[in-house]
Amino acid sequence: AGRKYTFLEFIIWTRRDIYNLLILSIIPTVLYHVAGFTFLALTWVPIALLGTAVAFIVGFKNNASYNRLWEARQIYGGIINNSRAFGVMVRDFLPAGQAEEVRPLFYRHFAWLTALRFQLREPRTWENVDQANNREYQRVYIIPERESTLAQELLPYLSEEEYNYVLTKKNRATQLMALQSKHINALGSVLNDFQLMQLQTAITQFYDLQGRVERIKNFPYPRNFSSVATILLYLFVVLVPFGLLKEFNAMGQGTFLEGYTVWFNVPFATLLNWVFLSLDRVGESSANPFEGGANDVPITNISRTIEIDMRDMLDEKDLPPPIVAIHNILM
Amino acid sequence: AGRKYTFLEFIIWTRRDIYNLLILSIIPTVLYHVAGFTFLALTWVPIALLGTAVAFIVGFKNNASYNRLWEARQIYGGIINNSRAFGVMVRDFLPAGQAEEVRPLFYRHFAWLTALRFQLREPRTWENVDQANNREYQRVYIIPERESTLAQELLPYLSEEEYNYVLTKKNRATQLMALQSKHINALGSVLNDFQLMQLQTAITQFYDLQGRVERIKNFPYPRNFSSVATILLYLFVVLVPFGLLKEFNAMGQGTFLEGYTVWFNVPFATLLNWVFLSLDRVGESSANPFEGGANDVPITNISRTIEIDMRDMLDEKDLPPPIVAIHNILM
Amino acid sequence: AGRKYTFLEFIIWTRRDIYNLLILSIIPTVLYHVAGFTFLALTWVPIALLGTAVAFIVGFKNNASYNRLWEARQIYGGIINNSRAFGVMVRDFLPAGQAEEVRPLFYRHFAWLTALRFQLREPRTWENVDQANNREYQRVYIIPERESTLAQELLPYLSEEEYNYVLTKKNRATQLMALQSKHINALGSVLNDFQLMQLQTAITQFYDLQGRVERIKNFPYPRNFSSVATILLYLFVVLVPFGLLKEFNAMGQGTFLEGYTVWFNVPFATLLNWVFLSLDRVGESSANPFEGGANDVPITNISRTIEIDMRDMLDEKDLPPPIVAIHNILM
Amino acid sequence: AGRKYTFLEFIIWTRRDIYNLLILSIIPTVLYHVAGFTFLALTWVPIALLGTAVAFIVGFKNNASYNRLWEARQIYGGIINNSRAFGVMVRDFLPAGQAEEVRPLFYRHFAWLTALRFQLREPRTWENVDQANNREYQRVYIIPERESTLAQELLPYLSEEEYNYVLTKKNRATQLMALQSKHINALGSVLNDFQLMQLQTAITQFYDLQGRVERIKNFPYPRNFSSVATILLYLFVVLVPFGLLKEFNAMGQGTFLEGYTVWFNVPFATLLNWVFLSLDRVGESSANPFEGGANDVPITNISRTIEIDMRDMLDEKDLPPPIVAIHNILM
Amino acid sequence: AGRKYTFLEFIIWTRRDIYNLLILSIIPTVLYHVAGFTFLALTWVPIALLGTAVAFIVGFKNNASYNRLWEARQIYGGIINNSRAFGVMVRDFLPAGQAEEVRPLFYRHFAWLTALRFQLREPRTWENVDQANNREYQRVYIIPERESTLAQELLPYLSEEEYNYVLTKKNRATQLMALQSKHINALGSVLNDFQLMQLQTAITQFYDLQGRVERIKNFPYPRNFSSVATILLYLFVVLVPFGLLKEFNAMGQGTFLEGYTVWFNVPFATLLNWVFLSLDRVGESSANPFEGGANDVPITNISRTIEIDMRDMLDEKDLPPPIVAIHNILM
Repeated sequence: AGRKYTFLEFIIWTRRDIYNLLILSIIPTVLYHVAGFTFLALTWVPIALLGTAVAFIVGFKNNASYNRLWEARQIYGGIINNSRAFGVMVRDFLPAGQAEEVRPLFYRHFAWLTALRFQLREPRTWENVDQANNREYQRVYIIPERESTLAQELLPYLSEEEYNYVLTKKNRATQLMALQSKHINALGSVLNDFQLMQLQTAITQFYDLQGRVERIKNFPYPRNFSSVATILLYLFVVLVPFGLLKEFNAMGQGTFLEGYTVWFNVPFATLLNWVFLSLDRVGESSANPFEGGANDVPITNISRTIEIDMRDMLDEKDLPPPIVAIHNILM
Repeated sequence: AGRKYTFLEFIIWTRRDIYNLLILSIIPTVLYHVAGFTFLALTWVPIALLGTAVAFIVGFKNNASYNRLWEARQIYGGIINNSRAFGVMVRDFLPAGQAEEVRPLFYRHFAWLTALRFQLREPRTWENVDQANNREYQRVYIIPERESTLAQELLPYLSEEEYNYVLTKKNRATQLMALQSKHINALGSVLNDFQLMQLQTAITQFYDLQGRVERIKNFPYPRNFSSVATILLYLFVVLVPFGLLKEFNAMGQGTFLEGYTVWFNVPFATLLNWVFLSLDRVGESSANPFEGGANDVPITNISRTIEIDMRDMLDEKDLPPPIVAIHNILM
Repeated sequence: AGRKYTFLEFIIWTRRDIYNLLILSIIPTVLYHVAGFTFLALTWVPIALLGTAVAFIVGFKNNASYNRLWEARQIYGGIINNSRAFGVMVRDFLPAGQAEEVRPLFYRHFAWLTALRFQLREPRTWENVDQANNREYQRVYIIPERESTLAQELLPYLSEEEYNYVLTKKNRATQLMALQSKHINALGSVLNDFQLMQLQTAITQFYDLQGRVERIKNFPYPRNFSSVATILLYLFVVLVPFGLLKEFNAMGQGTFLEGYTVWFNVPFATLLNWVFLSLDRVGESSANPFEGGANDVPITNISRTIEIDMRDMLDEKDLPPPIVAIHNILM
Repeated sequence: AGRKYTFLEFIIWTRRDIYNLLILSIIPTVLYHVAGFTFLALTWVPIALLGTAVAFIVGFKNNASYNRLWEARQIYGGIINNSRAFGVMVRDFLPAGQAEEVRPLFYRHFAWLTALRFQLREPRTWENVDQANNREYQRVYIIPERESTLAQELLPYLSEEEYNYVLTKKNRATQLMALQSKHINALGSVLNDFQLMQLQTAITQFYDLQGRVERIKNFPYPRNFSSVATILLYLFVVLVPFGLLKEFNAMGQGTFLEGYTVWFNVPFATLLNWVFLSLDRVGESSANPFEGGANDVPITNISRTIEIDMRDMLDEKDLPPPIVAIHNILM
Repeated sequence: AGRKYTFLEFIIWTRRDIYNLLILSIIPTVLYHVAGFTFLALTWVPIALLGTAVAFIVGFKNNASYNRLWEARQIYGGIINNSRAFGVMVRDFLPAGQAEEVRPLFYRHFAWLTALRFQLREPRTWENVDQANNREYQRVYIIPERESTLAQELLPYLSEEEYNYVLTKKNRATQLMALQSKHINALGSVLNDFQLMQLQTAITQFYDLQGRVERIKNFPYPRNFSSVATILLYLFVVLVPFGLLKEFNAMGQGTFLEGYTVWFNVPFATLLNWVFLSLDRVGESSANPFEGGANDVPITNISRTIEIDMRDMLDEKDLPPPIVAIHNILM
């Protein structure tokens, strides 16, 4: 949510990088100009080719990150759609005399949504949300799955017996959906075979959707691709301030700044490096769309929306409020 | 609709950008030539590399925008196809004696289409339709969903009872489709189980299609990707007029314009910047395909087409006219 | 069909472009060499960057065009596959005593194919088939849908009553398929529910396939993307002959052609521009794969193939001949 | 199969190109150095831009070729999967007393696989397999569909009556599958409606898979895209040896080879051209994945694998041997 | 698993390449500087163009590799999802009195998973896992499918009769799934037709998933694409150290290192070559995602996860432990 990050927000978010890049470009400039080590002025030709390779691989990584994020959102969109369809089927298939069976099926579905979002927000070693620049950003918003516990959140949705049963299980979302299956098949006397089949198909689809978000959660952007990108990027970043020395030194020829324009190397090498580094940071920050970061898929909000829509189908009156963005960040 | 925007239309649409770019390129040229600050002539090398990065990221964004637009159109195409298939099923499944049930199902479907298009045309903070250049363009066409209200448009399609019920709901499209489900399941005595299942499947698919357009509406091109593109583009645009100074100054050597060709910097730096900026504008203007802009997916037209086709199936005589393009813009 | 266009065919097809490009490159060369306006020699740096941007956007457009063409062919492939499957189901589901119901269903299907291809070959404002270079090319082949009328072609396939009914309808293909649905549901006494459901599903799929080709027909490559590509390309084309002046002038230094090599600018600027323009033309000429152009999806041929295959299933003896390529162009 | 082509195999495969390229680069070098036509040294700037365009379009074509090949393999993979699923259904659905119906259905399926692979290996005008360099390569392997005839191969799989019937048909694969449909529907008394429906669905899917490989066979990479790529590539190849003359001439300055280094133009222009030409050849050689070339989808092998797996399901004892690679080429 | 490879790990992994590259760049430098063969300094222009072509083709290959890896993971994700759905169906469809039928179906499913992963980990000629640099890496982790045998692993899952039967079969996974089909169809008296159909559909899907991973296993990145990439890359790598000689020699002009900076050629040509070679290595090492390499899809782990989840559905108590990463490598 929110329109765009401002230039300033970006600068602040990446300020640690900027400090490092400044130091990195000051060193060769000082050595060149003050210490007179002019032989440090690297030829630009291999750096330019390296730059092309870096641009390619960073672009490739960003593309993959974007696709991961977008697929994650698509899957959660699928959860919305199938939940609505599941809702009307449960409501309209059960004959009037069996209406008391509807509510447990609806609420167990909310429990499944809850278990799923807690599982997705668990930390992984390859996630970035606890890096310095991201952690600091978390002061302006809250991650609901870190403020509460699954046990607490499941309470209102399940009977006591099921509640205790589910908490003993390895993968709670999977076993909650298995309970839905058991319940539906136990309704064999009031539903006809077609209706049973359609509801079972819905469960198959929920398992499919659950498995697909778990895949995105558990299978990161491959470590070898990710590592080669980082290594090349850093090599490039180190070489740039050496490669631009001669260019900037030559820039001032014939002007009153002659001999001093080499100092332009500091802001411009930093700028160029910052551009490439920021592109990489952006991709990195979307590669894991369930880590609790500011650009996550808003799974808490979506889960709540489904709850509202489904309870609205039952004409319940005390609908919970939607989850709204805090400082333009929607969880 | 319409063949292409003319060069002039494009110039007019982006004229505010052009003014700014002209100023941006006049400043360094004046400082260089009039004030003699020749040291301002930046070396082109880092700018060229920056330009490559900008081209990459703008291209990436345009690609994503195009895919969003195209997916949006695909989904609405899916709504057409499924509506026709739903139409013939409802018409041909119901036995001759139950023909009076057909019309309410058809008209409630039109109500769903209407609720959906009103929801999709609601404004979002990240949409561009109210920017100066777009707002001015809106004088030449009308956005039907802003000229009327949902309550007004739903009236002809629903019974009074349902009309009042639906307007109390959070997500009207969702609950209208839920009413379809209820109605179909209530027809259990005149339809066989196979027919019920097929109609229920149709409802599941409409929920799927609805959810997918809602996803495109509610999940914009990610803010971090979008912001980094804008920031890099603006950095590039600011640097270009400095970077071309020396080139254009050198251009006139040996001709009678020697010393004055630096002024070519003004039109050409502006031109180059305008090209990159326009590419970005084009992508930006298609990223949100339901905002009411001139390049939107024509959802009003499509909804009307469906209504015509379905009423034609019932051999109704007073078919509404199709929605046509106004000044080549189809809503 | 056919292997490749020869170089000569290409030259002839684009000869109008070549005339214009020649004039465009002669003008600055004459001004430079004859009139001595050497200051016209533009610096190449911004043009090179512009060229990169143009290459990107033309590539993007060609990619989109190719995808539209390929998707169109995929959909028509889907029509083939589903028609065959529909054919065997109709033939084998109906009990021996009801064989006289098979033929009307088969022939109404051919009517649907016919109505669909006539609808797809109707002109649209954004299509290119009536541009000078394409129109001239049409002398070597015929577009069957322009040589005949839908009314004429439908005659052999429909009963008189249905024939008259269908011609009063807005979207004939849609209503023909609706007649199939009505017929199938009327066979409820000789088909079991499973068979009815499978045939109804086939109709749903034909609606899906029809809607998808209609989408490609009615939703062109977006006007804003298309326009920006054309504008940038033309800007580039205008600048190239100015940008190469200095290079070609310098080429002859120290040879006996010194001072005259600037005239190489005429063939080479034309060549370079022609390359970019031809790339764009190729994309443009495949963006609308149902316009009746030489590179269209061969929908007349495919419709005939389906008719042959389906009538062959009934062991009919007087199968129509396949549509063959005329001058290597398959319609 | 097989790891990689060696450098030598590649050189041999493209040796005709290499001869031509050598001649092409010797001509301008001789004219430049021996005849002293130094004005032939073209400026590199437009050639570099042309090279970028060529790289783009060759890349685009290779990408499309690769996708065609990969899709072809995916479809044949789908045939494997559906054949196995069809096999177990036929075997396990038929009651013990009807086991004699299983074998004809299995063997007719093998007949369908055989008819399909013969149809796919028929020549098309746009295929490359009979070009000189490919034809020569065919000496090291055999294309089974050219060593035998369909009539011969079908014999073991069909009853005499069906055998004669099928050979009179236009599209044998289509009509073989139609026979499967007829047979299955004739089993209505021993199979229940669910089983009939599932087997009919399998037939629909086989039609879908057949149609998709036929699409790849019959709809080549579009002629206009293919032609523009070839033309641009050849233009580039002709210009390169002229464009490198000056560079190589300058290379020797100050060394004892001064004045002779222009001869480096011959190997290096040839090398550069060969690289681009080979990239194009690779794409070209995968664009038609059923032409009988060394990089084809191994459809003979796959068809045999299916036969083995299905006969193994019946616990047959005399399973045929798998098709193995000959000189690392798997057909 | 694990965050990233460190720079050092990468260096060690590629150290053989680095040795070769060092030698490759030392040779021309020594010849140039020591032997005075200055004519060896190749002009950079054709190398730069070659570099672009190499970057393109290596990028293309990495993209294809990444897609293969990702698709492989998606398919195995699909196996997870369908296994869970299959599990609840088997458990909940069978009436209470038939619970003893559940366990064999579950355990035969684990047998299928086991047979599949053993088949996928069999070596292929085009795989890289036994190259020197990868083999050495295998000391830090174990490939479970190489430490045990299929026969051993299948023992706990199958009855003795089935165990012996399956081991006689060609494709064990296929025939295990065929046994599932036979078992399910034999349950016809306790399951209704809808339930049978749904379970049969699950088997069809498992065949589909199995066939898709087998496709990735058996159809490598095409040999011609792969070979041309390797050849171009090696040509480029050989030329680079010659092409940079002049640049680095010129670098020291006017500094006290004049005449010696040509030695910078050794580290920088090596660095540049290493970058391109490493990019290629990364792609190569993910192209075959079931070869037993460090970046494989973790199929042992996934199979175990499925076993845990499914046994947890039966409330079994002695669940096996999950497979965990060894030195951050998950098998």
